[in-house]
Formats: sequence, C-alpha cells, structure tokens
Amino acid sequence: MQINQQRLRSDIESNAEFGAVPTDEGRGRTVLTGSEADRRAREFFCERLRDADLSISIDEVGNIVGRWVPDSANPDAAAVATGSHLDSVPEGGIFDGPLGVYAGLESIRAMQDAAAEPARPIEVVCFTEEEGQRFDGGLIGSAVAAGDMTVQTALDIEDADGVPLGDALADIGYCGEGRLDAAAWDAWIELHIEQAERLVAADAVGGVVTTIVGLSRCQVELSGEADHAGSTFMDERRDALAAASEFVLDVERATNDRRSVSESAVATVGKLDVSPNAPNVIPGRVSLTLDVRDVDYDSITHVIDAARSSLDRIESDRAVETSLEHPWDRRPIEMSRRCRDALHAAGADGGLDTIDLHSGAGHDTMHVADVTDAALLFAPSRDGISHNPLEWTDWEDCADATRVLAGALARLASE
Amino acid sequence: MQINQQRLRSDIESNAEFGAVPTDEGRGRTVLTGSEADRRAREFFCERLRDADLSISIDEVGNIVGRWVPDSANPDAAAVATGSHLDSVPEGGIFDGPLGVYAGLESIRAMQDAAAEPARPIEVVCFTEEEGQRFDGGLIGSAVAAGDMTVQTALDIEDADGVPLGDALADIGYCGEGRLDAAAWDAWIELHIEQAERLVAADAVGGVVTTIVGLSRCQVELSGEADHAGSTFMDERRDALAAASEFVLDVERATNDRRSVSESAVATVGKLDVSPNAPNVIPGRVSLTLDVRDVDYDSITHVIDAARSSLDRIESDRAVETSLEHPWDRRPIEMSRRCRDALHAAGADGGLDTIDLHSGAGHDTMHVADVTDAALLFAPSRDGISHNPLEWTDWEDCADATRVLAGALARLASE
Repeated sequence: MQINQQRLRSDIESNAEFGAVPTDEGRGRTVLTGSEADRRAREFFCERLRDADLSISIDEVGNIVGRWVPDSANPDAAAVATGSHLDSVPEGGIFDGPLGVYAGLESIRAMQDAAAEPARPIEVVCFTEEEGQRFDGGLIGSAVAAGDMTVQTALDIEDADGVPLGDALADIGYCGEGRLDAAAWDAWIELHIEQAERLVAADAVGGVVTTIVGLSRCQVELSGEADHAGSTFMDERRDALAAASEFVLDVERATNDRRSVSESAVATVGKLDVSPNAPNVIPGRVSLTLDVRDVDYDSITHVIDAARSSLDRIESDRAVETSLEHPWDRRPIEMSRRCRDALHAAGADGGLDTIDLHSGAGHDTMHVADVTDAALLFAPSRDGISHNPLEWTDWEDCADATRVLAGALARLASE
Repeated sequence: MQINQQRLRSDIESNAEFGAVPTDEGRGRTVLTGSEADRRAREFFCERLRDADLSISIDEVGNIVGRWVPDSANPDAAAVATGSHLDSVPEGGIFDGPLGVYAGLESIRAMQDAAAEPARPIEVVCFTEEEGQRFDGGLIGSAVAAGDMTVQTALDIEDADGVPLGDALADIGYCGEGRLDAAAWDAWIELHIEQAERLVAADAVGGVVTTIVGLSRCQVELSGEADHAGSTFMDERRDALAAASEFVLDVERATNDRRSVSESAVATVGKLDVSPNAPNVIPGRVSLTLDVRDVDYDSITHVIDAARSSLDRIESDRAVETSLEHPWDRRPIEMSRRCRDALHAAGADGGLDTIDLHSGAGHDTMHVADVTDAALLFAPSRDGISHNPLEWTDWEDCADATRVLAGALARLASE
C-alpha cells in the first residue's frame, strides 16, 4: 500500500495553521478546546473527511468520526477504528495528536487508492479534549466513548472561568448528538509521536506499545508558618519549603531504589507552588503534585507508600502539617496481542523496523483499551521533545509510521 | 510627659480606613505607593500635621516632613527627627509603619501639651515606598534622604506596568520639591512594631535595637531539562526542582551549623518558581531567592559561600546549570549609642521596661544611620505576626512605646 507523504504532510501543515504561534525555532500552535483555533481545526478535518467520501458523525461531547464503508465490507460488522486528537497544550507542537488523526485518514485514503477490499468498515476519530488544558483531566472524549465517564459529567466540566465544556462545544458548533461507542469497535489503533528517544536510538520507525504505564497522581500540601525572614530564628521556623524539599528528595530516592525491581518506575514533582512566595517571608505553605508511573503497579504503590512515610517523618521532624490526596490511580494497561501482531506484521511487510516498548504517557487509547482490543503505535520524536514548538518528526518517518498503521488496519479489517 | 492614647489610637484607626480590606479576623489594609489609598493616607497625615501647627514640606520623591520649631528652639539648629512609613504590603496590618509615623506626631503633640522647651526643631517624617511592593527594592524615600540613591534614580524606578515612581507620585499630587536631607538631622529615632515575640516574652514595652542585621539577597537559577514525566527514565532526568530541593536543604544545614558561631544567623529561600510547573512535566527550570541575615557579617559570607559550594556540587552531581547573582549585600548596622541611651533613660524615667535586642528586618532607619546618629525602637507585636491583618499591638503598648519615644526625642532635642 502506498502512503502519499505529500498529502499527509499537507494536511498536518494545514492543520498547524490553526492556533499557530510565532516562535524563534520550530513550529508551535495553541489549540484549546472550544477556541476559534479548535473550530477551524475541526472544520478543516471534516472537509478532508468529505473529500475522502467518508460519512461524518459528531457526538454530544464533540468526538468526530469519519466512517468508510467500502463495497467489500459488511456495513453491520464492527468497525476497525483509528485516530487521535487535534487539541494541543499552549504553545505545543504540530504532531502531538494531529499525526494520529491525519495518519488515520491517510490510511483510509491509501486503502481507497489501492482499491483494498476490507471486510469491515474503517473509522477515523478525533477525540475531544485529550490534553486537559482548558477542561481539567483530559482524555475526555475517549473517556466518554469508552463509557468511563457519562456524557453529562463531561459536558458539565467547567474551565477556569466556569464555562462548561458543553457550552464551549456549542459555541463552536461541535456539540453533536448521541455518544460515540468505542465498545462497538472490533479493534483500535492510535498512532502518536513517541515523546521520547527510544525509537531514534533503535533506528526504528514504529514503536509497538506493549503496556501503557499505570499512573497515580497525588496532591500534597505542606503547611508551616509564614514568618518574617529576618526576625525568626532558625530554630523557631516551620518552613514549608524546606519540608517540601525533603519530600521531593525522599520520593526521588525511593523511586531510584525501586528501579532494581522495575527499571521503568518514575516519579515526578512537576508542579510546586509556594505561598506567600516572597523573598523576605518564610514559606508558610507549599502545594505540590506527585506523578508516579510504571508498567508495574506494585512499584507505583511502593513509591506512594514511601511518599506517605516521608510526610509522616517530616511532620514529626519539622512540626508542619501535611496532607496527601490521591485522586487518580490508574493501573497499567496491556495492549491487545492481536493488534500488536498486526502492527509488527505490517512493519515486516513493508520492510520497516518496529520494536516493542512501553508508553510512559497516557493516551486516548488507554480508555479505548478498556472496552475493545486496542494498540498504540509510536513514531520517532526528534530529541524526544514534545509539548513544545521544537517537537519534530521527519515527514519520511510520519509516512513510514503511517504505512505501518495502514497495513495493520487493513489486516485487522480483513478478518 | 503624657501621651494621649485615645488621640494616637484615633489617628492609627483613621489611617487604617485607607485601603482597608475586608477580613474575617484582624484588620487589613493595602496601601501601595501612588494608589488612591496612599493619596488619602498622605492627605490625612498632612491634615493632622496642620492641626498640630507643624509646617509641611514634601520632597521630589514624596517624603513628607512635619516640622515643629518651638519658641525655645534655635531654628538653625540641626533637628531631631522621627517617623516611619504609611505604605503597606498587600493585605498588610495597620501598625507596620503608621505606628511610627503617628507616634512621632503624638510625641510632638505631647511635648506641645506639656509645654516642653526643646532646644532643637523636631521633625516627623513619612518616607515613600518602604515596603517595595509596587516599586522594587523598597526603602526608597529613606535611601534618597540618606543620599544612597539619587532623586532621579528613584523617580525612574518602574512598577510592573512600566509606570515610573515619579509619575505615580505626580498622579496623586505628592511629587514635591527638593530632597529631604537626613544628614542634616542631629539624630533620628524610628518606632516600629517588633514583628517577633521577644518583647512579649520579656514582658517589656520597648525594644532598643543594638544592631540592624546585615542582609544579602541572592537570585539563584537552576536549569535542567523539561521532559515528559512519563517517558523519561529516572536516570535520564535533569530535574531542576530536585536540584533546587538539595540547594534549599544545603543552605538550611549550613546556616544551622553556623549558629554555633552566631546564633542569630538566618537564611531563607522565600520565593521559588518552577517552570513549566505542570504535573506531567519534569521541571526544567527553577528560580529562587536566597535571603541571608545576621548581626555578624562573617556569618552571612559563610552561608553565601556554602550556597555557592552547594550549587557547584549540584551542577556536577545532576548535570544541571546554575547561577547565583548577588545584587544586595548590606553590612550589619550598629545603632547610635547616644540615641539608645536616650531611649533606655526615657524608659526608666517612665517606669517602662526596655530591653536591648537586634533587628532582623531592614527599616528606613538603616539608611538614616548611614548619615546621622540613629536608633530604632520596637513595640511589642502579638504573636510576632506582621504583614498580615492579624498583626496587632495593644493600644496600651502603642502608648507606652510612644512615651519612650517622646521621652528620648525630648532628651535628644534638649542638647
């Protein structure tokens, strides 16, 4: 099957114009859900779906589906589906999401061009609010499609200004009808950029994900006393930042120690806010997030336990108060063996190197995998950079990874 | 000499109305330089000066002086001066600054009521922008009065929106003429709340400051690499926050160790900003401030050296880049023996307990002490709280501390 690299590139580059941000280097875009940039990106995608003679449906949470039912297919058979998302982080890159959406469409066009005769319908999907930048949590469209979240819960999620997702979608004309049901699919594959350097290091064009890591997200608060930096002796202090610093290092140490059991265990304190955050005031309060991931769920539990022990010790050593909330806890998710096999076989068919690896990042595929056979394919990321205008995947690599995707979709849809 | 507690309280409470903020507990105010609240506070102060028959002058940086030249005084003699500031931090308390301004005025009124016959003029001063909340640095009016900063430099300091101090003062009608010259004063005493609990602990009404601590302020940057929290192995990370956490604890340890040499040594990382500060991104950059103070200058140098060594070690251990800028370095300042003696003598005269202590905070007096004999008197602070609506000094303590101030001013002005 031939992938039209120029057509794929043109779609991704056209899409990159929506929400484009000026940058010194690279190419950036800001596409927040419900923004004008989002509206234009969705409109362009629908135009491209129509150009490929796909039927379009949009569900109540704004998930867009382009459906191809070739003459060869039983229209009542469960579809094989692919896709990703078109929203971005602020000043994100042009591949994270759009590559998977337009590679999905290009796969269908490639099959059409090759007069392929799949036995099943094939669908290409754009999920709503993957990044969670305007509406908290992210992965919203796929959560609804997998039945992990109700339509109403999703529509009621409010942005920082109190605008519900439902209103934001209605504003741009993308609050449709019904609910996309991922459970109705026979199989699903998402192509996404790797956001790491393993493929580049292995000189492979396709990374077949074995497992999406489990992820625990904790919110930690440390409260001491905000005192004057000049008039409070060292032994009178209850410094929340010094306490938080011990916590950061304790968690890092516990995670490093755990690597002897599971090398892929990672923990990150990514967001830390100090209050009142003034040079001449001892920090009275620190709020921070702890993000723990691994393919091995026991390692996640181990690190969270170590974090709790650290807080207990710090409370008693430093006379501060602490709390740890643990609102997110997702177990590792194995990808479907038959979808993975289809990807490797498609790679072999095309003479393209594919390797197994795990995904440290969450993707819409996580939700889909709850209800049907699902796989995730990575394309190489230059320097592993993402969420940044410097995010880059060579057009050749985009086309090669799309070739693996198209081959796997064709295999799955042939059964 | 009788202090009219009711008159003093009425002045401070009237002043507290300007920029008053609603609070659940305590009494808060926000008086930023050049704001409407600042204008009204200055206007009310000038009215009170006129009521006391003082002549008013306002210099180019907005310092306000009320001058009393009693018949007994040689009008050409160097004045004895007192005062403080009327600006506040956002949601600050009602005593920090205003107590010193209105206690100064009350001292003059008390001398007038007692038909005292000082040999020198007495001046009461409100300095501009002590807190440095709108215009960076703070202590601006006193720096100009002491010749540590030129008038033009001060007027050109811009706020966060690029408005120069000169324009902000002109907007409220308080950009006057000439330059208040603190070097022309025979002596200076400032009354200020303690912002610590030593007076309460000692059950004393007056704290006579022996030394204002030296202060070094450093700006520290740590740069690692902002990577995806899920797809970057622990041993591939260059986490700027983990690096900063080591720094915070290294500095704390070095300062605690130094206390065997100088118990009053303190160091504070009060402001710390993480970039990009997102739960799922490894921190790429941390900016933080380091504030080091002591009455012993060698201890400050020792802690700053330890901070530099810590950064060197962290650079090599964690492959991050660091920098330390050291824009502020002020040596400890001894208060004038004769002014301190006058304060203790005035306390003894009135049967009021005074103790010696050091000041961990900088005050306008720091600048004045560069050019004339100066002293700083502390009044008790309940729970040591300041820069907060819960800041409180009992009215009885305000009056007693003012009695010590008035007695000392009278003694100094008698010579």
